[in-house]
Amino acid sequence: MLEVAALLRGAERITAFCHENPDGDTLGAAIAIALAAERLGKQAEVVSGDPPPPFLAFLPGIERVRRTPSLEPDVAAVVDAGELSRIGPIVTERADWFAASRIVNIDHHVSNPGYGEAVWIDPEAAATCEMVTLLLPELGVSLDAELATALMAGIVQDTHTFAHPNVSPRTLRVAAELLEAGAPLAAINRSVYADKPFSTLALWGLMLAAVGQRAEGRIVHASMSNAMLATAGEQPTAAEGFVDLLASTRLADITILFKEVGPSETRVSVRTSARTDAVAVAAAFGGGGHPRAAGCTVVAGLQAARELVLAEAERELARGDARDR
Amino acid sequence: MLEVAALLRGAERITAFCHENPDGDTLGAAIAIALAAERLGKQAEVVSGDPPPPFLAFLPGIERVRRTPSLEPDVAAVVDAGELSRIGPIVTERADWFAASRIVNIDHHVSNPGYGEAVWIDPEAAATCEMVTLLLPELGVSLDAELATALMAGIVQDTHTFAHPNVSPRTLRVAAELLEAGAPLAAINRSVYADKPFSTLALWGLMLAAVGQRAEGRIVHASMSNAMLATAGEQPTAAEGFVDLLASTRLADITILFKEVGPSETRVSVRTSARTDAVAVAAAFGGGGHPRAAGCTVVAGLQAARELVLAEAERELARGDARDR
Repeated sequence: MLEVAALLRGAERITAFCHENPDGDTLGAAIAIALAAERLGKQAEVVSGDPPPPFLAFLPGIERVRRTPSLEPDVAAVVDAGELSRIGPIVTERADWFAASRIVNIDHHVSNPGYGEAVWIDPEAAATCEMVTLLLPELGVSLDAELATALMAGIVQDTHTFAHPNVSPRTLRVAAELLEAGAPLAAINRSVYADKPFSTLALWGLMLAAVGQRAEGRIVHASMSNAMLATAGEQPTAAEGFVDLLASTRLADITILFKEVGPSETRVSVRTSARTDAVAVAAAFGGGGHPRAAGCTVVAGLQAARELVLAEAERELARGDARDR
Repeated sequence: MLEVAALLRGAERITAFCHENPDGDTLGAAIAIALAAERLGKQAEVVSGDPPPPFLAFLPGIERVRRTPSLEPDVAAVVDAGELSRIGPIVTERADWFAASRIVNIDHHVSNPGYGEAVWIDPEAAATCEMVTLLLPELGVSLDAELATALMAGIVQDTHTFAHPNVSPRTLRVAAELLEAGAPLAAINRSVYADKPFSTLALWGLMLAAVGQRAEGRIVHASMSNAMLATAGEQPTAAEGFVDLLASTRLADITILFKEVGPSETRVSVRTSARTDAVAVAAAFGGGGHPRAAGCTVVAGLQAARELVLAEAERELARGDARDR
């Protein structure tokens, strides 16, 4: 952490970079780095190749987030990106810019290979925003309501508001400091998790009404068809969060969501409990991911894809049972 | 707090009482008081007039919770009960027992009138379990995994796992201590909020598929009919938590859930945002509650009750708009 703090303190112009499909953790951390730099009299900006999602509109300075850097190369602070390439095609498109910059790598992904001139990786941190909160005193910047709001956003999103097993006593203590400094915790939680349009509720109703189970409830599955989207007047992104609801079913070892893309293309999301491997199911169809959450695309319509993947899920259940014995 | 600690320290036999329809906060606090007393070499027991809900089966010593006291009168520690009568008919049925006991009143409800010989009411506390955690050092008892698990249960349930506006920096710091002492936060959250049987998911699907709106989405409503319960194979208690999902709709000022009791009886739950008064809607039908959450029973079938209450909700929306002007 000290090396990272030293490089940031010595910089005059800091460009903070978010990863693709930015979430509250990468945006919150990047905005906090830029705000902290400005508090120290430096020039700073935040760059995100993809636009921020609407539910993060409350982030301070979100309107200043740019698609490409405008500052002269000095320090590039890359936050919450497990690989440098995760910040998007800009890395190759502006290779000259990156070659002329010193890269600061702040991340909590255990898989981070340690790219950059100054590296701080802490897989014990629930969020990169937890790390940046701890970094502020090293930079000589005190928390204020804007910084605290940005940083709390990352913790709320990466821990599902303190519900996931990645929450440590330190996470809660950091959150206490942020709340004390003025972060509107309940409002952030509401904005990130409880601000569904009515049409999303209607879509979820259609999906839940057709929920299915296999293997005596150990496999729970649901589907999102284009017909459902049309009926509810919704976009495919409205499925966000649905799989969490599905995975909250008692006994479910494997939870699967099928999304119709076209007549012969189905996107599949797999979640598993500790007993089974989501990657094993997804890999059978050329997909991948993490042991608890993986995905694949099946070259088949919704119904055919369902049969293929559910059969594979039943096989993985049997393999898991065999491992347990 | 010191008076309460002194009375508990001086007691030889402590009976801890829960409120009716016990939740994680009253059970967690009562169990923690009893465990702490036992750590100090005292006799202790936990009494709950109503049986604990199944989702709290993880609480240490839950199997020892009794319906009535077995110890000789000494100290009755009443936790999380805004009125003494909230602990149930036992107060009058065993009036002699209570008359012979000294009552310790530990609660976080602002409405608590301060009954008992030693009183500690802290409306700033998110949960009575937050208070009991702070009490332990005064009793000379250190946290261990059992105590921490019981106390975390109350905080998780009374804050909806840190999502509600009652969470303070102190709440998060207390939770950090409990997590450090071994409370399985993620597992507790899962048990309380994410352990629905498949049949509940199916019921919610039926309810969501028929969700309705009025006043351009400012009123959102859903119904649970006996036919839906039969189709899903569920009990009316499966609606627990559904209104939270409903209330997460963007734009919704008033959220209403209608539950069919019989051909001419409908139970109504009303939730409101800060702009409108749930009590005003419920009171029109002889009900009551809090400004943000109230309920009533309408002497009418599901469809007729829906029309009556939705009309009243539209009037309250108009009154709220008039107040805002």
